[in-house]
Amino acid sequence: MTKQYFWTVFLILIFSVVGICQNEDEDALFIKDIHDFTLTESQCYDWLTYLSTECKGRLAGSEGADNAVKYTKEIMDTLGFTKTWLQPCKVKKWNRGDPERVHIKYDGKKVKLNALALGNSIGTPDGGLLAEVIEVQSLDEVEELGRAGIEGKIVFYNRPMDPTQLRTFNAYGGAVDQRVWGASKAAEYGGLASIVRSMTLRQDDHPHTGTLVYKEDIPQVPGVAISTNDANMLSKLLKEQKVMMSVWTNCSPGEESISYNVIGEIKGSEFPDEIIVVGGHLDAWDVGGGAHDDGAGCVHALQVIHSLNGIGYRPKHTIRCVMFMNEENGLAGAKEYARISNEKNEFHLAALESDAGGFVPRGFSFDGDPEVLKPFYAKVSKWLPLLEAYGLYFTTGGSGADISPLKSQKGLLIGLRPDSQRYFDYHHTAIDQIEAVNKRELELGAASMASLIYLIDKYGLK
Amino acid sequence: MTKQYFWTVFLILIFSVVGICQNEDEDALFIKDIHDFTLTESQCYDWLTYLSTECKGRLAGSEGADNAVKYTKEIMDTLGFTKTWLQPCKVKKWNRGDPERVHIKYDGKKVKLNALALGNSIGTPDGGLLAEVIEVQSLDEVEELGRAGIEGKIVFYNRPMDPTQLRTFNAYGGAVDQRVWGASKAAEYGGLASIVRSMTLRQDDHPHTGTLVYKEDIPQVPGVAISTNDANMLSKLLKEQKVMMSVWTNCSPGEESISYNVIGEIKGSEFPDEIIVVGGHLDAWDVGGGAHDDGAGCVHALQVIHSLNGIGYRPKHTIRCVMFMNEENGLAGAKEYARISNEKNEFHLAALESDAGGFVPRGFSFDGDPEVLKPFYAKVSKWLPLLEAYGLYFTTGGSGADISPLKSQKGLLIGLRPDSQRYFDYHHTAIDQIEAVNKRELELGAASMASLIYLIDKYGLK
Repeated sequence: MTKQYFWTVFLILIFSVVGICQNEDEDALFIKDIHDFTLTESQCYDWLTYLSTECKGRLAGSEGADNAVKYTKEIMDTLGFTKTWLQPCKVKKWNRGDPERVHIKYDGKKVKLNALALGNSIGTPDGGLLAEVIEVQSLDEVEELGRAGIEGKIVFYNRPMDPTQLRTFNAYGGAVDQRVWGASKAAEYGGLASIVRSMTLRQDDHPHTGTLVYKEDIPQVPGVAISTNDANMLSKLLKEQKVMMSVWTNCSPGEESISYNVIGEIKGSEFPDEIIVVGGHLDAWDVGGGAHDDGAGCVHALQVIHSLNGIGYRPKHTIRCVMFMNEENGLAGAKEYARISNEKNEFHLAALESDAGGFVPRGFSFDGDPEVLKPFYAKVSKWLPLLEAYGLYFTTGGSGADISPLKSQKGLLIGLRPDSQRYFDYHHTAIDQIEAVNKRELELGAASMASLIYLIDKYGLK
Repeated sequence: MTKQYFWTVFLILIFSVVGICQNEDEDALFIKDIHDFTLTESQCYDWLTYLSTECKGRLAGSEGADNAVKYTKEIMDTLGFTKTWLQPCKVKKWNRGDPERVHIKYDGKKVKLNALALGNSIGTPDGGLLAEVIEVQSLDEVEELGRAGIEGKIVFYNRPMDPTQLRTFNAYGGAVDQRVWGASKAAEYGGLASIVRSMTLRQDDHPHTGTLVYKEDIPQVPGVAISTNDANMLSKLLKEQKVMMSVWTNCSPGEESISYNVIGEIKGSEFPDEIIVVGGHLDAWDVGGGAHDDGAGCVHALQVIHSLNGIGYRPKHTIRCVMFMNEENGLAGAKEYARISNEKNEFHLAALESDAGGFVPRGFSFDGDPEVLKPFYAKVSKWLPLLEAYGLYFTTGGSGADISPLKSQKGLLIGLRPDSQRYFDYHHTAIDQIEAVNKRELELGAASMASLIYLIDKYGLK
């Protein structure tokens, strides 16, 4: 080795090391800037306050949803996007109708239960239903009891969410089949209606609505959720005696109409044809403010743009912010977004959805084909120390319902993972309101998303 | 190597590896049992409900504190301790007196502020104080302004907690000198009273009380906290005009009395002379339920014992559960506990305090002399994977005010680190009530503490 060559190699090595360190320092500083900006100058909490109070009950096709479309489009128009637009999609409304009347009758008493009809449910006959209640723990138990045990009765599904699941979404996943399929399963054996224990780990008086799906070729019967306190009370009674229940609802499927995904796009400076999406869903169940589900996700996505702009970051890739319509009862917006994207031969490098509430962020879950995930994991492991400093960790798992139709484009799908302990206290209830959201927790979610988007945009995925 | 020798070594190696794996599996299962039990059969939330409603306003020396002593002693007597006892300590009461009356006067208007006298503060003269308000950002600024700027005025300390601090305790630490020393600093330069912006990151109407300390040889003047909304409003006004303020309080130091630490002890089966303490403090500020501060810590400590008992664990070391009295305004209980312990030549191997709220646990901070920490860190790194599964991480830092006097015994001091984002929303306010506590978050805190206590008890610290 000549002396000159030695020094050349030596200096290259030194500069490389310094370069790497500078990059890491630069990224750490940038991520701190994102957090500092978001914790001091964010607007997401104010946006969410408006969205959950002035656009409440925003089920697709409702006035609340229309207002939410208008409002978030207006916000987008202030955020410096290259362009913003409304993407039409056909949605089917569902009407709750008048307040549900569900009573149990025993020992000459008539006790009103805290109840909400399930989304997509039909109503009862005009005069309501009156029948004996039978408690079951599962869809399987209905099959076991068969027509002899079920016919002419109201079926009460009472298997609780499993409190030993640390991540409450797993507990939800282990119980929600009762809500989704309970009515059709009951009807299959002659049951008159399905009454479901609310999907929550709390013991309280708030019923939780949510989607019910009717199986084809099986008669449709009404589905209703009751509060966990009422479910406990009813279950206790049923151990002692026969209980009659009266159910009256007048919910009904509504008309088809046009609603919209709300989209903003910043054209990428280096890779304009590679799209990074960040989004949440704009619709929410009719009974509440949809603050955590999923107003939080919408304002998270908007805040990502506001924060990156706020500290002067200009993305290399095209970044889109999407407020998806109709996640709760049809996914029409997500399907339409993917359909049009595929039609245009677009490529989504990455899609990040926030649809697990505005709680303190704990990390991200990654989903994608193995050939996408493998090189990404090698890369992302280098990013982890930058995010661990903010209490953020990576895991493999589901991302989000609205971005899942993009999976066929072979990009990376990502879900924000906020702390899940309180999510199902509010999910699909009348108390999912701004008061249930802590401003800093919401802001930290947005800052963590902006940090990840920054890293993906700057370094790509391979 | 003979063939026999080879096989002996080989088998020893295999059994060691199997042994280690078995231990790890056994520990993982045990920690899962602790969590499962705590998430399904805990009593901590019910205990906290009682403590924060029936023993509210439990400042040392008050009826609420007496009730809390009785109540937690009764609980302890059901938890299978070897023995339980009350340890007397001399406390000095402080009386808030009648509701504070703080008004600002400008443009012919008189506006009432949301205010709370600071703990230990003297009251105003009978007729109250009326003077011009001057805003400062720090104790230093008072010095800079000097007697010319301060004399005869009411000093308004308005430096906010720093929102960019991820851990809110750091933001608190960076602002609380104004509350603690503001009155004496004002008085040093002829100020008539100290009005402090509440120690919280929220913008709301709830004033936060807390301790004030008077410096010796400086005249005592009243100290009062006002809500952040009022502080913002006042600050804005002061930019435009002179503002007069009237302050009336009749708080006063109270009489000395005897209160108690409440202690339960399980004698260790192998190392009865090595004590592991788990505790929280029983007293709380007079205005609220003390649910997070520090009812949560007390029921955490009780639940650790209930959970370890519940799954049949018999400790090798002596385990003590201590409800310390008078952390908020004197630390009399903690000092007395350490004094008696030192007098008896006891050795506390480890002490774990929960005094940062009943929020979802994020890990533990360790404190101790270097010769304690060094071997411990080598050991604890092996435990980390067991706790990481529950989202728990280790850090170095402060432990807890009540256990800090035990540091001279050269054991390990540990603080539970719950998520800190919401803590100062409630700290020292009237809204620190059971409604602000999520049952599962509280339970997870207790389960994480029980898991660490189990590992320390089983494996020791060296």
